[in-house]
Amino acid sequence: MTRTVKPITSLTNDRVKAAGFSPQTLVYRAGALETDRQKRLVNAVLDGGAEVLEVSSAVLEKLAAKENPQSMLAVFRQQWVDLPDVKELPQKSVWLVLEDVRDPGNLGTIIRTADAVGASGVILAGQCTDPYSRESVRATMGSIFNVPLVAASREAFLTWVPRWSGDVVATTLAAREDFRKANYRMPVLLMMGSEGPGLSEALAAIATRNVKIPMAGKLDSLNLAVATALMLYQLRGADLKL
Amino acid sequence: MTRTVKPITSLTNDRVKAAGFSPQTLVYRAGALETDRQKRLVNAVLDGGAEVLEVSSAVLEKLAAKENPQSMLAVFRQQWVDLPDVKELPQKSVWLVLEDVRDPGNLGTIIRTADAVGASGVILAGQCTDPYSRESVRATMGSIFNVPLVAASREAFLTWVPRWSGDVVATTLAAREDFRKANYRMPVLLMMGSEGPGLSEALAAIATRNVKIPMAGKLDSLNLAVATALMLYQLRGADLKL
Repeated sequence: MTRTVKPITSLTNDRVKAAGFSPQTLVYRAGALETDRQKRLVNAVLDGGAEVLEVSSAVLEKLAAKENPQSMLAVFRQQWVDLPDVKELPQKSVWLVLEDVRDPGNLGTIIRTADAVGASGVILAGQCTDPYSRESVRATMGSIFNVPLVAASREAFLTWVPRWSGDVVATTLAAREDFRKANYRMPVLLMMGSEGPGLSEALAAIATRNVKIPMAGKLDSLNLAVATALMLYQLRGADLKL
Repeated sequence: MTRTVKPITSLTNDRVKAAGFSPQTLVYRAGALETDRQKRLVNAVLDGGAEVLEVSSAVLEKLAAKENPQSMLAVFRQQWVDLPDVKELPQKSVWLVLEDVRDPGNLGTIIRTADAVGASGVILAGQCTDPYSRESVRATMGSIFNVPLVAASREAFLTWVPRWSGDVVATTLAAREDFRKANYRMPVLLMMGSEGPGLSEALAAIATRNVKIPMAGKLDSLNLAVATALMLYQLRGADLKL
């Protein structure tokens, strides 16, 4: 329950609020309150009882830890949810499990993709990098507000997982089933391992379905965020329409 | 034609040679020549007339610009190819065009994915970040050796592209065709724009087919490497088997 700084200017205040987030502090660059949208945002934040600070460009750059940041930053309390109650899951649910993911850019990109396909949430099992780190939050492009996140030790996850009613899916090199041809039993729990080592033996052992993403030539792996996106689009694709 | 440093220990020497790359210099950490594979590699490099240097851990870390680098580095001459002769393209070819891509991690990841699907090559149009930068090379995970790269100004690309015989595909928000349902006319030239602004008007105007990747909720974009991977697997999928 620590605090984190993240940019909110690309989000409407309504969307952030709808996700249950409410800023504790809003910081903006002096002179940046130009558009009606920005003024409405500041007024809404003040009405909510939060602190609003006008700062110089230099202070804003320091807070954002980057040059030429957007003109506003806000501080929100992190949100975490518990492991889901499997009895209440809609039939078409897809939950994603990430084990020991190390790269914050990958993690943020995966949260963004989970949002894009309407996944139900992301379970961070074991020792994952912090989804609320600056680099991860930036890579989510705002999806950090939309995707329920669970942090669970490997043991807690392994104790919970037998209750899952549908397929527990792993991608493995040894699998003989093409990920595009498998007949997944919904709801699906999709497990993706860390960059490099992949899933631990303990998690690989509980998979009820192993699939493989075919590759040309001699390659044996894809970037984790790419592999996860291919799987998520396969699993959620039927529900995604233009 | 400048030089670049990249790790080669995850590659067999045969694979690098087959791709037409030959190291000019090999650098290894003192004491690291332990396995037969490492010794064979050093001997092969010496036989090829290249320089081999044994260095301390501190020097290796400095060269690699990271802590705990792998035990060997090599210097190769960059390779670039010309815009392809469209008369000689196999019918099933997919060439990828990236315009003004800025993030080296994205670029390296895309080159890795292009390799994984057996794309014919990648055309870097306009002002793209350097594919031979350290961060990009690392993200390719060795695929930098396998994927033909073209650098072309926007003008040179636009002059060349009318010769293309198949579809010139763009992903746009306004498109009404689902990328999974389009009947692409091969060979395909897939154009992807930069992070944020997307394709320039000049490139968008030459597309013969516009498609869209459906997303849930209110999202309107995916990470560039993710969107490119979804498109490449769609375009090359029929040729990818387990």
